[in-house]
Amino acid sequence: MATPAKKFINNPNDVVTEFIEGLVETYPGLQYLDGLPEVKVVLRADVSAADYDKVAVISGGGSGHEPAQAGYVGEGMLTAAICGDVFASPPVDSILAGIRAVTGPMGCLLVVTNYTGDRLNFGLAAELAKTEGFKVETVIVGDDCALPPPRGIAGRRGLAGTILVHKVAGAAAAAGLSLEEVAAEAKHASEVVGTMGVALTVCSLPGQATSDRLGPEKMELGLGVHGEPGAAVVDIQPVDVVVSHVLQQILSPETNYVPITRGNSVVLMVNGLGGTPLMELMIAAGKAVPKLQLEFGLAVDRVYTGSFMSSLDMAGFSMSIMKADQSILKRLDAPTKAPSWPVGTDGNRPPAKIPVPLPPFQQNKNEESLGRPQELSQQGQVLEAAIEAAATVVISLKDSLNEWDGKVGDGDCGSTMCRGAKAILEDMKNYYPLNDAAETVNEIGSSIRRVMGGTSGIIYSLLCKAAYAELKANAQSEVTPKNWSDALKSSISAVSKYGGASAGYRTMLDALIPASKVLEEKLSVGEDPVSAFVLSAEAATAGAESTIQMQAQAGRSSYVSAEILASIPDPGAMAAAAWYSATARAVKEQSQGL
Amino acid sequence: MATPAKKFINNPNDVVTEFIEGLVETYPGLQYLDGLPEVKVVLRADVSAADYDKVAVISGGGSGHEPAQAGYVGEGMLTAAICGDVFASPPVDSILAGIRAVTGPMGCLLVVTNYTGDRLNFGLAAELAKTEGFKVETVIVGDDCALPPPRGIAGRRGLAGTILVHKVAGAAAAAGLSLEEVAAEAKHASEVVGTMGVALTVCSLPGQATSDRLGPEKMELGLGVHGEPGAAVVDIQPVDVVVSHVLQQILSPETNYVPITRGNSVVLMVNGLGGTPLMELMIAAGKAVPKLQLEFGLAVDRVYTGSFMSSLDMAGFSMSIMKADQSILKRLDAPTKAPSWPVGTDGNRPPAKIPVPLPPFQQNKNEESLGRPQELSQQGQVLEAAIEAAATVVISLKDSLNEWDGKVGDGDCGSTMCRGAKAILEDMKNYYPLNDAAETVNEIGSSIRRVMGGTSGIIYSLLCKAAYAELKANAQSEVTPKNWSDALKSSISAVSKYGGASAGYRTMLDALIPASKVLEEKLSVGEDPVSAFVLSAEAATAGAESTIQMQAQAGRSSYVSAEILASIPDPGAMAAAAWYSATARAVKEQSQGL
Repeated sequence: MATPAKKFINNPNDVVTEFIEGLVETYPGLQYLDGLPEVKVVLRADVSAADYDKVAVISGGGSGHEPAQAGYVGEGMLTAAICGDVFASPPVDSILAGIRAVTGPMGCLLVVTNYTGDRLNFGLAAELAKTEGFKVETVIVGDDCALPPPRGIAGRRGLAGTILVHKVAGAAAAAGLSLEEVAAEAKHASEVVGTMGVALTVCSLPGQATSDRLGPEKMELGLGVHGEPGAAVVDIQPVDVVVSHVLQQILSPETNYVPITRGNSVVLMVNGLGGTPLMELMIAAGKAVPKLQLEFGLAVDRVYTGSFMSSLDMAGFSMSIMKADQSILKRLDAPTKAPSWPVGTDGNRPPAKIPVPLPPFQQNKNEESLGRPQELSQQGQVLEAAIEAAATVVISLKDSLNEWDGKVGDGDCGSTMCRGAKAILEDMKNYYPLNDAAETVNEIGSSIRRVMGGTSGIIYSLLCKAAYAELKANAQSEVTPKNWSDALKSSISAVSKYGGASAGYRTMLDALIPASKVLEEKLSVGEDPVSAFVLSAEAATAGAESTIQMQAQAGRSSYVSAEILASIPDPGAMAAAAWYSATARAVKEQSQGL
Repeated sequence: MATPAKKFINNPNDVVTEFIEGLVETYPGLQYLDGLPEVKVVLRADVSAADYDKVAVISGGGSGHEPAQAGYVGEGMLTAAICGDVFASPPVDSILAGIRAVTGPMGCLLVVTNYTGDRLNFGLAAELAKTEGFKVETVIVGDDCALPPPRGIAGRRGLAGTILVHKVAGAAAAAGLSLEEVAAEAKHASEVVGTMGVALTVCSLPGQATSDRLGPEKMELGLGVHGEPGAAVVDIQPVDVVVSHVLQQILSPETNYVPITRGNSVVLMVNGLGGTPLMELMIAAGKAVPKLQLEFGLAVDRVYTGSFMSSLDMAGFSMSIMKADQSILKRLDAPTKAPSWPVGTDGNRPPAKIPVPLPPFQQNKNEESLGRPQELSQQGQVLEAAIEAAATVVISLKDSLNEWDGKVGDGDCGSTMCRGAKAILEDMKNYYPLNDAAETVNEIGSSIRRVMGGTSGIIYSLLCKAAYAELKANAQSEVTPKNWSDALKSSISAVSKYGGASAGYRTMLDALIPASKVLEEKLSVGEDPVSAFVLSAEAATAGAESTIQMQAQAGRSSYVSAEILASIPDPGAMAAAAWYSATARAVKEQSQGL
């Protein structure tokens, strides 16, 4: 025997009762009749037949189509749902119990999908209920458009269009209409909706093997919700093509199944069959709407996309198109507490897209910030020298960094850093506002972000942007050593926060954290700023070299053996120590030169 | 190359932009920034950054997790969602564009799932936004409980618990709280939620082949939402066992990931991973709630079941448990217009089940209706004779009916009918109230319903119940021939309505419809009732025999070749003609005997 399809179930015979138990745990507005496993009826917790003053709307059928029908029980939609076993019509006694449980003096409408079993069982229950004194009307929904007009009894199957009929009927009942009026609205709705399904897989029944009817490259057109074979098996196509075919079939003037013509308004339901992710349903919906508008000349007033009436785990979808006049729209838009009716689908449709906002105008930038100054201030000269030194050393280290990184990572650390350093040198010449240290740091970040991809690009951008924010907030035009020290701290804390690393993680922070500590410490005890900077650079180098003993905690290095790691320092930390030290040397040289 | 997984998509590179287009077609409350395909930002259509007076709540991340995050955009939840490509963090510029588009003077909170890419990209965007003058706070969510405490940067993954954090943050923002307060509530929420996932299949990326990592009998425990391997691969188990394992893992006192202890209140989220039908999710939810209550001593205040944060087409689910105090419940229950937040989940939980209602007390039954009368009236005698004759002829036809049915159906027509006939004879002796014709017809229907299964049982019950309703409504205690004729018409119309057959469909109606017509006609022109009945019986027989020329329109016969059908009459029609004729003969004999 073939292995049963994999499912999250217990005993395959218990799936429906266990579904109902979970449903009622999830939605406190629902209850069930205490007759499991035979009587499987889900009903509104707030309705008692004796004093219910609205028309009850009842539906049901075989299970395996969840959320249909039990998920549509709630004020404004169904009053009760009668659940059969998987793909089996519910027995007459269950239906009768459901009718008795929710039907008051206004009577009840049974909305029945067009399958022989459902028609007969609901029909007999209706007649029995009448003999008990209940007022009962029945509307049968057969919305399938996949097959040519039938010659026999079976007729068109009831598919997801039934959900729209439920909504119309439920809203009409909630509005206080009489049984005859509710039935008339439901009947009208059932006559103006058409549906067609397509699938990539056949559903598998609980406890049974999965069908291999469809191979890895085929899809099935026009099938129902019970895994019954479709009208055609074809090669899989882009969903664009599939959607066109489905819409043409539903709106075919030959079968004339739905009375929809150019200029009409419609609503569209894109219904997942159980195993189709929402992404794919939304893609289908997004393609269907413009096709309906442009190719069929229809106004699309509402779109409902989701899994509304499924077929166990089938990967597939159906589309339903209902002709929509103001009266139907009013019913579809009416509020409901049914948990599975989609929300947020009504209302006016604003333009789908709005322009990408531009960066806010930077009012706080002064003239000097707008480009390289004609003449450099003393601080501007130091800054230029420092940046040049840092970039130059990074460029010179390209091959060593690549070599180290080739052993513990993906081998591009040197190349990536070099690309950033070259862009900085180039951009600095062209437009860095070097007399404004904060803005210059900001521009360095922008240069890096422009040319350095990957994680290191983001981390260095973060470093600069956090330093910029600190300097901008707290530094005067003349940036003090304390300002620089605070900016470094702020940078480290941003990288640590967003990157998740801290000391000892074998990253660039193992160079910068010791440097920052020493810098802050020395400055706080009154050390000469330049020598504090130089001392902190020594700490950076020592820290970077100490990574040789560290285990990697992130990135590719974490997959590399400890033995290999123990022979190589972290290239990111070495690069950071190098540019930091070069900067310190340059500042020292500048200060001595003056 | 292996065949790509079957999906309803067009170009695999366009899935995210096409998803967004469909999403916005479906929900008029959503818009997107006009920057596709690079900038993929979904935002509230009713929010304009310039005058937005609430804290904006922004999230995002790689796509493939639909409806997360874009489906949670709406008043009371997210203000914008930034979509990356499938399983890829969105680029910094997209995030920045999203921040600019919705952030007003109150600032914005970024809710970020704990993946290095998301942390860094959102982090840099946050820092850039700050340099532009925006107030920005960031909360990182890592709710995964599947793995032991991590040693490195990666930390615990952000899973479906993030959706609950969105809700808390969004509701806090909607309540008008400050950025610091909103961030504090979101951070608290992120610290009291734990999640674990299980799966039956690995997801397949658009355009790529499906992984066969799991065989037909294995499941994976503790995996993430990107198809990354889980903590363990085990034999598939009943979902009961799976749920127990998941709950134990989340609430493990060893990892102590969530601060939940006996006596606490919690909320539960059962989240489908994209390819799992709602039925299975509900089964898991229904099992989890009593386990949490009884085994873990927790009060379960809310249950959210659905596909909230998926993993493309993965068949699997995750469970999230969040510690719930009144403040968190208030946020979770607050109204939201976000389309994918579940509705109908709040409120008081009434008893899950209520008693199956009993049939209403039949006040209109008189004494005579309650059993076989001591003495039969004249009409009662005729009725008894007619019923006996009808039942007897059906019993005598058992083998012929079976034989015919064996050629065109499933061969049990005779046996089924015989079972019904015997029960009628037996029950008539015991309790049919023969002096009340209407009630007797009703009892015949009940006898049939009790013993005859299948379609024919329902159809004959329907026949009797519809006749009963007609007689009950319009006949006096002495039933007239016109009453009987109307009852027959009513029966036929019920069977036709619910069964879908009419004249020429090769069913029992091909005997009864001609009979009914002749009976009505003859009575209307003043024909003697008994001879009208006899003439109508001849029409029934002629009608039944004519089925030999008819094509089957329903049931198993519709699959039988025309050649075979052309040699055999419809057994159902022949049986109907037989009991109808026997009844007529009996009535004639009774009338002559008098």
